[in-house]
Amino acid sequence: MNKIQIGIIGSTACSSQIAEIAERTGFLIARSGSILICGGRTGVMEAASRGAKAAGGTTVGVLPGSSKEEANSYTDITIVTEMGHARNAIIARSSDCIIGIAGGYGTLSEIALALKMGKPVITLASQWAIEGTIKATAPEDAVECALRLLATGKKNNI
Amino acid sequence: MNKIQIGIIGSTACSSQIAEIAERTGFLIARSGSILICGGRTGVMEAASRGAKAAGGTTVGVLPGSSKEEANSYTDITIVTEMGHARNAIIARSSDCIIGIAGGYGTLSEIALALKMGKPVITLASQWAIEGTIKATAPEDAVECALRLLATGKKNNI
Amino acid sequence: MNKIQIGIIGSTACSSQIAEIAERTGFLIARSGSILICGGRTGVMEAASRGAKAAGGTTVGVLPGSSKEEANSYTDITIVTEMGHARNAIIARSSDCIIGIAGGYGTLSEIALALKMGKPVITLASQWAIEGTIKATAPEDAVECALRLLATGKKNNI
Amino acid sequence: MNKIQIGIIGSTACSSQIAEIAERTGFLIARSGSILICGGRTGVMEAASRGAKAAGGTTVGVLPGSSKEEANSYTDITIVTEMGHARNAIIARSSDCIIGIAGGYGTLSEIALALKMGKPVITLASQWAIEGTIKATAPEDAVECALRLLATGKKNNI
Repeated sequence: MNKIQIGIIGSTACSSQIAEIAERTGFLIARSGSILICGGRTGVMEAASRGAKAAGGTTVGVLPGSSKEEANSYTDITIVTEMGHARNAIIARSSDCIIGIAGGYGTLSEIALALKMGKPVITLASQWAIEGTIKATAPEDAVECALRLLATGKKNNI
Repeated sequence: MNKIQIGIIGSTACSSQIAEIAERTGFLIARSGSILICGGRTGVMEAASRGAKAAGGTTVGVLPGSSKEEANSYTDITIVTEMGHARNAIIARSSDCIIGIAGGYGTLSEIALALKMGKPVITLASQWAIEGTIKATAPEDAVECALRLLATGKKNNI
Repeated sequence: MNKIQIGIIGSTACSSQIAEIAERTGFLIARSGSILICGGRTGVMEAASRGAKAAGGTTVGVLPGSSKEEANSYTDITIVTEMGHARNAIIARSSDCIIGIAGGYGTLSEIALALKMGKPVITLASQWAIEGTIKATAPEDAVECALRLLATGKKNNI
Repeated sequence: MNKIQIGIIGSTACSSQIAEIAERTGFLIARSGSILICGGRTGVMEAASRGAKAAGGTTVGVLPGSSKEEANSYTDITIVTEMGHARNAIIARSSDCIIGIAGGYGTLSEIALALKMGKPVITLASQWAIEGTIKATAPEDAVECALRLLATGKKNNI
């Protein structure tokens, strides 16, 4: 009980290349036995959730709107916040570590909130080079890094 | 995927009799294949989560504070809202049906929010006789009623 | 600075009789030098805000949606929460005392949240007879009671 | 009624030089007849509020915690969110324009949320050079720019 919860953040729309990265990352999170937390919608979130389900994992979608229907079909647990963008703070708080994949302003807000809360933040294919984040080169790298940081209780790079 | 999510609400402190009712209700929710959503803390929430885990179910704790540590040990998925009492609205929104067990003002706020959102609300051993809620006599009655209402898509008593 | 903030809660639709009560209550709050906090929308909220403006007071609308446009035209300060019903918790927290006028489930949720937070709650023309609330007979009675309770730092009836 | 609401964001601790910039910016916002919205706490927020009060303006503090006592003494209207960092989204939503002064991760989260919501974001003495923000050189420049953008309804630099 009380498994590691890893958050993946990214946009509702993304290229097929980014979707592949997200799917692989979700797969690896689930295969490690961790729970995937995300925004529960389309794009990066849907790809990551699909990957996690392919590995038999558990997926949590923290939705911005007021209806469960908003969740993508790979979501096991649906949290309906009705809080709009402020739900990003709940994703950050609920995740032991955040992996940001590509992404725009919404993803940046989540990266900043997670850093403010002292959570480790790893980025993949990101345009945001924010001090304090750790740049990973591939899904394997990102998930390994997340697990290593959580195991050692460190939140920054070595 | 997208299983029924049933919320149990109640106080952080309760008598052993109320805890038994909560545990039995959580057990029956899980045995029906539904997910248990609650506030993730002690009292009614802990008893209900313990019951759900005994039936091999999945439990979600939507916490008011800012740390996962606040969750009781029967919580599988921890949602850390850092929103205080306003998290009651998230529990109501995320649940297809709410079962209120005993409870004080916090429980009453949740009952009212759920009714406002048009969700079915069933009460057990409750001091709150609010118009629109359905009074159940026992955990079996409450969970059967919840499942029947959700199956028929009705939100009020017959 | 840091004036008394009194919250008026009630429905978005109300009879002309209830609107008159709300307007008079808003007027008296403003005349006492206190700030009026409400949900910023139509019905009881608009009437109360109109009354407060007639007395030269300051009105704050804590909106559930995502746009300032949602505010009634008697709102001086517009707080846009984009939180739906969960904004009721912010109104309760921000008010030193709550006056509930008539109202349905939304109002009940606010009454319960305020009681849970230990705030004095006064009702006018209300169907909700919740233990711990104080029933006022008229706007004058309600506002006098609110000010007396806040002056003496007591939250319950004498 | 429904005056322009301009948000100032920045850290709870700042140098005297940054405090001076914040105070001057708050002063100019108030002198323009606009309402100042901020996080209501110390540092940049307190300095900006002090400036706004010196110009006879109205100040709104949107607090992260659960008590009015958290507000600095230059706050006219106190909004108590009990939402922690998620209250940044409310400041962004409630402001017609955001001016970010210096600041760390919290300020960055607010800049990103405001940009995501399509609000104009102006920065002063900021380490964050985020695409889409407008860099001002001095308080006069920042406030003039904010008012000009709001007058023309444009949210980006020319």
